[in-house]
Amino acid sequence: MEASEKATEDPAWRERELIAVRQRIDAIDAEILRLLSERGECARRIGALKGEGVIYRPEREADVLRRLIAANPGPLPNEAVRVIFREVMSACLALEQPLQVGFLGPWGTFSEMAARKHFGSAPHFHPMTTIDEVFREVEAGNLDYGVVPIENSAEGAVGVTHDLLLLHPLKICGEALLRVHQHLMGQVPSLRAVKRVYSHAQSLAQCHEWLNLHLPDAARIPVGSNAEAARMAAEDPDGAAIAGAAAAERYGLPILAHNIEDDPNNTTRFLVIAKHDAGPSGKDKTSLVCSAPNRPGAMHRLLEPLAKHGVSMTKLQSRPAKGGLWEYVFFIDIEGHQSDPEVAQALAELEERAAFVKRLGSYPAAIA
Amino acid sequence: MEASEKATEDPAWRERELIAVRQRIDAIDAEILRLLSERGECARRIGALKGEGVIYRPEREADVLRRLIAANPGPLPNEAVRVIFREVMSACLALEQPLQVGFLGPWGTFSEMAARKHFGSAPHFHPMTTIDEVFREVEAGNLDYGVVPIENSAEGAVGVTHDLLLLHPLKICGEALLRVHQHLMGQVPSLRAVKRVYSHAQSLAQCHEWLNLHLPDAARIPVGSNAEAARMAAEDPDGAAIAGAAAAERYGLPILAHNIEDDPNNTTRFLVIAKHDAGPSGKDKTSLVCSAPNRPGAMHRLLEPLAKHGVSMTKLQSRPAKGGLWEYVFFIDIEGHQSDPEVAQALAELEERAAFVKRLGSYPAAIA
Repeated sequence: MEASEKATEDPAWRERELIAVRQRIDAIDAEILRLLSERGECARRIGALKGEGVIYRPEREADVLRRLIAANPGPLPNEAVRVIFREVMSACLALEQPLQVGFLGPWGTFSEMAARKHFGSAPHFHPMTTIDEVFREVEAGNLDYGVVPIENSAEGAVGVTHDLLLLHPLKICGEALLRVHQHLMGQVPSLRAVKRVYSHAQSLAQCHEWLNLHLPDAARIPVGSNAEAARMAAEDPDGAAIAGAAAAERYGLPILAHNIEDDPNNTTRFLVIAKHDAGPSGKDKTSLVCSAPNRPGAMHRLLEPLAKHGVSMTKLQSRPAKGGLWEYVFFIDIEGHQSDPEVAQALAELEERAAFVKRLGSYPAAIA
Repeated sequence: MEASEKATEDPAWRERELIAVRQRIDAIDAEILRLLSERGECARRIGALKGEGVIYRPEREADVLRRLIAANPGPLPNEAVRVIFREVMSACLALEQPLQVGFLGPWGTFSEMAARKHFGSAPHFHPMTTIDEVFREVEAGNLDYGVVPIENSAEGAVGVTHDLLLLHPLKICGEALLRVHQHLMGQVPSLRAVKRVYSHAQSLAQCHEWLNLHLPDAARIPVGSNAEAARMAAEDPDGAAIAGAAAAERYGLPILAHNIEDDPNNTTRFLVIAKHDAGPSGKDKTSLVCSAPNRPGAMHRLLEPLAKHGVSMTKLQSRPAKGGLWEYVFFIDIEGHQSDPEVAQALAELEERAAFVKRLGSYPAAIA
């Protein structure tokens, strides 16, 4: 590069150039600070105009973030734009109304990370002992929002969250996606000494290529869960487990290799629950839970209106209905907002056909 | 407030006003994005001018942050300005050079929080199993920077970090302060049922006022550490412990009350270690470790040059010297940079008097 070649030749010129660029950065920072302060004043004005109503509008934040990312000319990566403006909006929202946000604790869980990813640093965060407690505290009004895991690409659906969504009158107002990392952990002195690798079959599959490359001769032993795998590795001097960092902590296992999953996009999905859902943001999802009459073809007939109106389904998850009138309930996610005409029409027709339907809410699709 | 009163009278006016303010916010965001992109280009230019040298300059970042906080006109709180510009600088630095930062793991520790507070979101973070491993990996060049705890206001000095600072040729290039929270935890069904509270004597003292108010009749039982207190609470159906969140997690104890420390400024201090220290930022600290000859009054004589040149000492910590020539070594922190004339003179005179002195580095004092 021209600049760096010349730099080695003439240190005085280089130093002058560095000072000039730093002065420009200082001027940029001063201007950003001025704009941030004006943005803060705008946020206060919005708070005053809205009065006592709901202040946090997930659809507006999602729309702002998406437009900024679309307009990003570089060189900053989109992720940096997302993180910076997430904090800007978080700080401005706190001027309107300080949010109380609960999550499945303790501190340091993926749920806390998801809550901070979704809400930024400014809210007051509260770790809850159970997912049930998150729901109860939001329903009681002690928390404005709750963040709970709903699906894990390694371990599937979080059953308790599904059951609580069915029972509680709360709405889904947002979702957050977190990348999940798998690590190899064990008491063995080095990678070469690993004779057996324990993990859930799904995790073994997810780390297939890494294992082929680094541990081609180790036996792969599928077990019931990744936590169970860590427990077994803790008792096997020649064994290692593939699991998340929390399992390494619980069983005191040194981590032998970090982030060994083949697909770096392996994610866990979290829901943001509240007393309200969200308005349309332009790229939304709608969640519902329903039950079909118990006869052949009923499920197919139930879903027909979605296909007819061109509404895409992104999730269909059956759950045994605990002590209710139905044997099974079905959790369905579709693309679009319930106020979109085709979604509204499809849902109206689905509701005519279903034995039971509960709309869990429309909300912006997660951003990155 | 006028706006909110009028709002309730005329919803159409309110809606128009809201739209106008939101349009102004959108224009502000677009301008901030433009400035961020230009700042990113400046960062790239600096990277090119510097070539292969050390890119991260803690003193420059501290200076920029302090000036912005001093210039903050509100309404955003200084903490929001710090968080936002921390992320801006983190993203721009990553364009110059992606940093590899290690911390005392696993994920979710206070050390990780300190590393993120100091470096923002953009670096690659690596959890290490031990403090020793952080030092070794930085020394081996596998990590650019390491973040380790040095002092905890509840539990005092972290001995191993002090010992490693003495052994390794690494420098201190920064410090980070994290607020530490104490929680009441136990198996009891409610606060009213708590008959005994276990904790380290220091933690009991730190939560004295809260205990007087909420548990005036419970016995306060000092034990060796907060982790030990949590273990005892786990075995006592009428007992509770005061400890950090990690202890609650380890012993599976529900948290009965959050953040019960009387002094909300209760902090843990972390050091950032590297192969280099930092240039002067205007508000710096200098750390050293030394040994005085083993005779009466030697320590007093050793420290005399500091007083003579008006240099403030912020820490004096003695440690038994493991297997060395001296019985004790002393860790000293002073205010100022070793390039400041009065500090330079005081250190030169101190070095003449000491049996042994090692300068651990000068670095910017932590911001908030």
